Amino acid sequence: MDQDAPQCEVGFIGLGVMGKNLALNLADNGYNIAAFDVDHDKIADVTQQDILENGSERIVPCSSFTELLSKLSSPHLIVLSVPAGHPVDDVCHKLIDAGICADDIVIDTGNSKWNDTVRREQEYEGKFLFFSTAVSGGEVGARFGPSLMPSGDRYAWARIEPMWKAIAAKVDPDTGKPIERFEPGNPVIEGEPCATYIGPNGAGHFVKTVHNGIEYADMQLICEAYHLMRSCLDMTPKEIAAIFREWNQGLLDSYLVEISAEVLEAVDSDTGQPLVDVILDCAGQKGTGLWTAVSALEVGSPATTITHSVFARALSALKEDRVLASKHLSGPQIDAAIVGDRGEFIQQLHDALYCSKICAYAQGFQLMKTASDEHDWDLDFAGIAKIWRAGCIIRAVFLQSITNAYDTDDDLHNLLLDPYFAEQISNYQSNWRQAIAKSTLLGIPCGGFSSALAYYDSYRTETLPANLLQGQRDYFGAHTFERIDKPRGKHFHVEWSRPGQPMVKMK
Amino acid sequence: MDQDAPQCEVGFIGLGVMGKNLALNLADNGYNIAAFDVDHDKIADVTQQDILENGSERIVPCSSFTELLSKLSSPHLIVLSVPAGHPVDDVCHKLIDAGICADDIVIDTGNSKWNDTVRREQEYEGKFLFFSTAVSGGEVGARFGPSLMPSGDRYAWARIEPMWKAIAAKVDPDTGKPIERFEPGNPVIEGEPCATYIGPNGAGHFVKTVHNGIEYADMQLICEAYHLMRSCLDMTPKEIAAIFREWNQGLLDSYLVEISAEVLEAVDSDTGQPLVDVILDCAGQKGTGLWTAVSALEVGSPATTITHSVFARALSALKEDRVLASKHLSGPQIDAAIVGDRGEFIQQLHDALYCSKICAYAQGFQLMKTASDEHDWDLDFAGIAKIWRAGCIIRAVFLQSITNAYDTDDDLHNLLLDPYFAEQISNYQSNWRQAIAKSTLLGIPCGGFSSALAYYDSYRTETLPANLLQGQRDYFGAHTFERIDKPRGKHFHVEWSRPGQPMVKMK
Repeated sequence: MDQDAPQCEVGFIGLGVMGKNLALNLADNGYNIAAFDVDHDKIADVTQQDILENGSERIVPCSSFTELLSKLSSPHLIVLSVPAGHPVDDVCHKLIDAGICADDIVIDTGNSKWNDTVRREQEYEGKFLFFSTAVSGGEVGARFGPSLMPSGDRYAWARIEPMWKAIAAKVDPDTGKPIERFEPGNPVIEGEPCATYIGPNGAGHFVKTVHNGIEYADMQLICEAYHLMRSCLDMTPKEIAAIFREWNQGLLDSYLVEISAEVLEAVDSDTGQPLVDVILDCAGQKGTGLWTAVSALEVGSPATTITHSVFARALSALKEDRVLASKHLSGPQIDAAIVGDRGEFIQQLHDALYCSKICAYAQGFQLMKTASDEHDWDLDFAGIAKIWRAGCIIRAVFLQSITNAYDTDDDLHNLLLDPYFAEQISNYQSNWRQAIAKSTLLGIPCGGFSSALAYYDSYRTETLPANLLQGQRDYFGAHTFERIDKPRGKHFHVEWSRPGQPMVKMK
Repeated sequence: MDQDAPQCEVGFIGLGVMGKNLALNLADNGYNIAAFDVDHDKIADVTQQDILENGSERIVPCSSFTELLSKLSSPHLIVLSVPAGHPVDDVCHKLIDAGICADDIVIDTGNSKWNDTVRREQEYEGKFLFFSTAVSGGEVGARFGPSLMPSGDRYAWARIEPMWKAIAAKVDPDTGKPIERFEPGNPVIEGEPCATYIGPNGAGHFVKTVHNGIEYADMQLICEAYHLMRSCLDMTPKEIAAIFREWNQGLLDSYLVEISAEVLEAVDSDTGQPLVDVILDCAGQKGTGLWTAVSALEVGSPATTITHSVFARALSALKEDRVLASKHLSGPQIDAAIVGDRGEFIQQLHDALYCSKICAYAQGFQLMKTASDEHDWDLDFAGIAKIWRAGCIIRAVFLQSITNAYDTDDDLHNLLLDPYFAEQISNYQSNWRQAIAKSTLLGIPCGGFSSALAYYDSYRTETLPANLLQGQRDYFGAHTFERIDKPRGKHFHVEWSRPGQPMVKMK
């Protein structure tokens, strides 16, 4: 080992947009980093930017895995920012070949599937400590303060904690709002860091997946409000942006509402039209929303609004079908009498968005609770809501209320049962219902709003028509049913082909 | 080999409820069967019932796999009816040990996951021909005429076809309705058999999965209509049964509406109450609805109503939560002025059920089309609709209209685009919207109805708000967007932090 080489605290592998920004963020915070990427230009790029911005040489270029290990103090601490999937395992195997040890720590910060993380923790046991940290906040977040969802071995966490807390986004403890930072250099920002230990193995990536599912719902609900204003009130993007700016001062104060206003205000430099009008209405997706929906189906947690939002993107992608269908399928005309007063209608949309948002978050937290119980993760929901208050895409003042709900009752079965949220919906539900009823009659789709309402109304219904459904199932498939007047777990069957026969008790 | 042993055409392994009834059905149709089960009592049971019902000894008991093979003419044809999952592979390996040959055929009739079937066909290649046949119709269907969805090797199908067509349910070609059979003995029923070759490897099990997904939606929609009559009109189960019997004479004529009436008419012999009122409102599920929803998410086909129906069962299972929530979460009271005229409201529910049903089927067929394109299955949708007209749980006159739609245009993109269905929805949508608007205002959940309407209204919308959503995605994640005035596949990005900057063209 070269005696002159600086001893680095952290190794960094993978210097794409996210990796580079995380590395620069670490450098800002005084960490010395040994950096490697298969693309050597990327190494040069990040070291140069480091010198330019920090004036020091905190990021040390390495040309191989072996060199990277040689620059690190022991036990090694290595951060991976490589594409999810097999590249993570490829790098792990190369590190093993390069001589990584059992008490070294490797942190995967990619967008990995949570069950891959579970598998990896087992697979690499004894070879090194595989730890994971899901990162939210996009490239800007990575550079100036992301929300971090770490999970894995608790011993490893003790070593990682100061580093993640240093680079994470910070929240003003008095207001619950993000403390903004947009400049390089040593930040030394006081505040509550958006990084907390989530749980063992895949818990962090699971929680991040649910975060993204909620993000899908948040975006879809905002889009529905926009679409209704556009279609029913014939408002311009600029006018709608003004409404969103207004909403951003109140209950809906959030990053996504804020950027929606900015998107709607943007003008296309080519055509002079509102930019939104030249953007093709086909939504892409990267898979995390889908994973959330699939997880919800698998554990039987009714995440209807999140799942609707995933399907809404799929439907938007069928552009050619829709253009064709718009010519052949009939619907009602916009009827001003149904829309009613403009201001009142806008308020109804506001309240619909707000109540639906509460339900989407209730679904996300319910899914995390179900998964936590199933996997014995013992998730801390107040802590999770806290680290989502800044740094991540769904950051909003709203998350302070969720924090409060779980601070008051950490065993809360459902966010809807928290007295504050129950009261909020009680106050605003009449307008929520009006907005959906009107959209239904006017022919403008609002599946996000209506799936949320169906969730709320089903959840608060003591007797659902599933009794008839169980009767059907027993009729055609002898699937049996339970009785309201008998203990749970006793199953009954009727010989439907012989009416009047006594019921048969099964198992 | 014993020279006196009868030469059987078919071997049968697994004599549970489904297996026993399929074997008896084969015996009815003149097949000689060598039968085996690990539970020897089950073998005795089926042979006895065969003698009793057929007076002949068509079902020959076997006490081992080797004995079963010795009783069969070559090449062997063996039907499995064992639980889905590893038991199928266990039996396959035992058959290999017992000396099964490369041109022998093994047919899995269990409720297997379609991708397991794909895997098995490859795994057993060269050892024997693994073929699959999904069976719908429950135990009664298996005994007197199921709907069969066979898939696999075409050579194998040529040998299997006469057997499956003999035992399948039959449709009257003039009316499109099932020809009922409820007695043992040689049926010789003329009619169109509900068995057609679906496609290669897992196609049959995939199509059966979608059948079950549609079945979930059908059941959920009927339950919503029931729930609304019960809650808003204060009708008794018996009164609602009478309405269902009426509906069963018209557009909604179907097995599921028929049995719903029977379930609602049933009286509990213990308490004298309507049976439905003592059945616990917690729906069970066996997984196929969930697989349909997951498949839809994975291929990006918006099966919103089917998925809602899966989640509705999950929500129904949260009984304790709902009892608690019913005490804490507020909602509107039933307002007779909103319900309106009783007869009119019932008609609105009828039309809502009918239009929603069309959408649920449209989603199911759209999912099959997407999967067919992805896997090169070349599915014949008219053929699939035909074999669902009898024998299976979703059998209904409605399926004749679907058959007609695909007979007219076998490349139809979506059932909604068929002129007949487009016109039907055009005629009935006003009542559909009224039913949803009223339920929304009255606080009775109807997520099946409303998810179907959102699907319809989204599908017929030329420009969805996904343009704003793509703007949001580009803003926070540089995910880029396409433009309506540029060719597809060109991706653009805005430097949102520097307003007024020209757009950047990517890739």
